[in-house]
Order: sequence, then structure tokens, then C-alpha cells
Amino acid sequence: MRVRWALEEVGQPYDVRLVSFAAMKQPAHLGLHPFGQSPTYEEGDLALFESGAIVLHIAQRHAGLLPGEPNARARATAWIFAALGTVEPPIVEREMAGYLERDKPWHQDRLPILDERVRDRLDRLSSRLGPADWLDGGFSAGDLLMVTVLRRLEGTDLLRAYPNLSAYVARAEARPAYGRAFAAQLAVFTAAPSG
Amino acid sequence: MRVRWALEEVGQPYDVRLVSFAAMKQPAHLGLHPFGQSPTYEEGDLALFESGAIVLHIAQRHAGLLPGEPNARARATAWIFAALGTVEPPIVEREMAGYLERDKPWHQDRLPILDERVRDRLDRLSSRLGPADWLDGGFSAGDLLMVTVLRRLEGTDLLRAYPNLSAYVARAEARPAYGRAFAAQLAVFTAAPSG
Repeated sequence: MRVRWALEEVGQPYDVRLVSFAAMKQPAHLGLHPFGQSPTYEEGDLALFESGAIVLHIAQRHAGLLPGEPNARARATAWIFAALGTVEPPIVEREMAGYLERDKPWHQDRLPILDERVRDRLDRLSSRLGPADWLDGGFSAGDLLMVTVLRRLEGTDLLRAYPNLSAYVARAEARPAYGRAFAAQLAVFTAAPSG
Repeated sequence: MRVRWALEEVGQPYDVRLVSFAAMKQPAHLGLHPFGQSPTYEEGDLALFESGAIVLHIAQRHAGLLPGEPNARARATAWIFAALGTVEPPIVEREMAGYLERDKPWHQDRLPILDERVRDRLDRLSSRLGPADWLDGGFSAGDLLMVTVLRRLEGTDLLRAYPNLSAYVARAEARPAYGRAFAAQLAVFTAAPSG
């Protein structure tokens, strides 16, 4: 979804190849992604992995996702790293506990610790965003990635507690490029047989 | 250390300003780093945060940390994201459990889960590196960040189980620029009164 949305924002056409979880751990895919994950990206002779690197690559080569002024460009890039390296990890951790430790006797007792770590990031992010539309000037690749990170919390009380962050996510989802990417993503899952 | 090392690799002079943990949560620092962390970076009118963004910024503006060929440059950038977004989080998680949950009754039972998640990343990284000196051609900003991530495991059995990764870290630490950065970092901690 991150890569689709970025390509829609810059108006570049693309083809999608779906990869099953099992195929991700096979040598052919590991050649593209050393950690056996998705997404990967191919463009001519270039093969890339890591959604942050792919979105940054697209943003550097096409207008629409990074400001032109060099300092503003560097700051937008910092928000990409902040989204993926600072805000996302405690959110993933909370999800992972649900997958890996749901049946453990300590799971319920750990949930408040996990929630608090997410809240710590959201507190800071909400303070920084304030009443602004986007994190630093116009919409950028940094907002794109931050919104995809926050969307992992959609429907939870954690995100609902921050009206400006909820509005920020809704503002991004209202973008035409997001709508096109979302519809295309949905079509894959509703059209493909499961398994 | 990440930023120092990068600046030493590209031969740029720098000044260091130390920030206490308490000062990091104050408005002056939050203006530079929205999440109240370090490092931050100032260069003329530009203020940046997130070590990945700072190292990438330095690497893009000075020769020595990114290859010249555009595709190779994009791949080196992908390794920056892989280091910070894929390899580091389970390592941080293992450290955090030591800080936040050491006294919890479940801590000992969770350690194998935390170790296994780190090992899963190291398995893949070790396979990809193989007998090579660096992750993709010559030494790059991707190696610089990956090595700083792996160094968080130095002295643990986790890293020792992968001779090629241990050798990779040692190879990086033998670089003159690393030596200069390390000596400068050490001088700060040995010279400054604690507290």
C-alpha cells in the first residue's frame, strides 16, 4: 500500500506481483529481499527492498512527494525515518505481542506497558503536529509513511485519544492518490482466491 | 557515534554539544527533536533529527559514504533502512525488556522469544553477507549504520554465533575514521564529570 500510494501520488504507472508468505522465504524472493519480507520493487535493472527506501527512491525521482528546497527535502526525509524508526516499532511490538504471546500467562499484564510506549510516541507526535495539516509544510513522503504507520492503530482507542492525529490520517485518506491506491489494493484481495 | 563516524568518513569537521537526558525532554530540545531523543544535527539553517536521516544527508552531500552510480546508491540507502527498520528493532526490544521488565515475573520466560527474534534477523543478514567484506560492493552508509546496530550485541553470544558478522563488525571498527570517532567519543565520557 505504501509503494502503491507513492506511485499514485507521483502519477507513475506500475504493475503488481503478489508474493505468498511461503514464497517470501524461498531463494528467489530472498534474492530480492534479504529478510524475506515485502514489499520489493523492480525498475529496469534496479531491485530495491524496504518500503522507506522504495518510497524515498520514488520521491527523489519524481515530483510530488518531496519539496524542492534542499533543507526542506532533508527534513521531509527525517520524517520518513521518524515514522519507520521511532513511531512504528512500538506499534509493531504491540501487534507482535498479540500474535506471538497472546496465549502466554503474562500477556494481559504486559498490554499496559505496550500501550504506554505507543502513547509516548503519539503524545510527542500530536504535540509537534498541533493544528497543522502536515508535519512540515506541504504533504510529503514523510507524511505518507507516518500515516501508513498510524493506520495500524485505526479503530483503537489509542489513536482516537488524539483528535489531531485522527484528523491527520483522515486528511491523508481523502487524497485522490490514496483513494486510487486503496481501491487498487482492495481489488486484489476481493478478486484473488484465498490461499 | 553514528554521526561522528559519518563525519569522520567524509572528512568534515564538526562540533559536539552534549544534551542530558533531562534536557532532551525540554522545549528547546523538542524543537530540534520532536521525540526528545538524540542525536540532532545543525548545519547552517538546517536542523535535522533521526540518525538515519542525518547520516544519509551527510552521505548525499559529501563523497565517501555512497556509491556514485544511481542504482548502487539506492541499494546502499535500502541498507540504511534495513539496519534501522528491520535489524535494530528486535535488538532494541531485547534491551528494553532488560530496562523495563527485568523485575517482572515473566522476564526470564520471555528472553528466549526475544533472542529468537534477533537471531531470525541475524540468520538472514549473515546469509546475505556471506564471505563479502561489505553488504553491497564498497563500504557505504548502509554498512556504517548496520555495524552500529550490530555493535549493540557486542559481547553477547548472539553475535558470536555468526563469525562472518563478527568479522564484519571488526572490519568496520578497524577503519581509521571509526578509530577517530571512537577516540573522540570516549574522550567526552572520560573528560566530563558524570551527572
